[in-house]
Order: sequence, then structure tokens, then C-alpha cells
Amino acid sequence: MKARVDITLKNGVLDPQGKAIQHALGTLGFGGVEAVRQGKVIELDLAETDPAKAEATLKEMCEKLLANTVIENYSIEVLG
Amino acid sequence: MKARVDITLKNGVLDPQGKAIQHALGTLGFGGVEAVRQGKVIELDLAETDPAKAEATLKEMCEKLLANTVIENYSIEVLG
Repeated sequence: MKARVDITLKNGVLDPQGKAIQHALGTLGFGGVEAVRQGKVIELDLAETDPAKAEATLKEMCEKLLANTVIENYSIEVLG
Repeated sequence: MKARVDITLKNGVLDPQGKAIQHALGTLGFGGVEAVRQGKVIELDLAETDPAKAEATLKEMCEKLLANTVIENYSIEVLG
């Protein structure tokens, strides 16, 4: 069972990587870029076949390892 | 106009970050994790209001800066 976890910085948390990308786009001549935020996407292949169980396991993985919940949000998508 | 660019490593390209995550999940007791790949997600806020033009601009940004097209794939999603 394939799944996908998106991890993004919470609003209000400074995102230096995003700022660097925004600045670099500006110097390359791309105007009108108002904001850039960079996050992570983690694609997992699980042996679990029950979508509900897979989602519960993924939530636990996010809380314990994948996301730093102090500064990051995560969203889980089970792709089946 | 908001847009989202997903950047993932091409198949066959070694992903040490993904392997590290897979190993760490194993040591935390999460069995049955068969594969992990890590990618990036970049969320942009553009002044452009025409979705077609925004997509063309984003494609150019990916080719020139955001993705290393030798080893990475990108997918663009204009969220409106």
C-alpha cells in the first residue's frame, strides 16, 4: 500500500529555504513571486493492506519521527 | 495565485535520505515499511492571475532553478 506524507512548516515559522528560493527566482528575472515556502514529501510503501490501519500507523510515524510537530504540520494521504 | 511544485527523485536514483528514514522507522518498531523516498514540495504565491501563464512560468522556474532535471522529476499544480 502506497502512502504519501506532506510536511510543511507552520504559519509564522521562518522559512529561510523558501526565502532563498524566492530571492533566486527574482535574480533570474521571475517577477511577481510573492511568497515561497518549502516543505518535504515522503512517499512510503507499506506492507499493510488495510487503509485505516495504514493511516493510523502513518500518524504515529509522523508524531514520533517524520515531522517536528512543534514547527511543522503534516498531512497523510493513503494512495491504496 | 497559489501553486505547488512537487519534486521527486527519478526512479533508479539512490535516495540516502529515504533509506535513513526507512531504517529509523525500523529501529522505532515500525515493521513492514518496504520503501521510502523523500522529495521536496515548494508552495509559491504568484502575482500572475492567468492559470495557463502561471503554469508556463512555473515550468520555466523548474527547468532553470527548482529541479535538477538530470536526477529529479517535477510536477506542477496550479491551485488558483
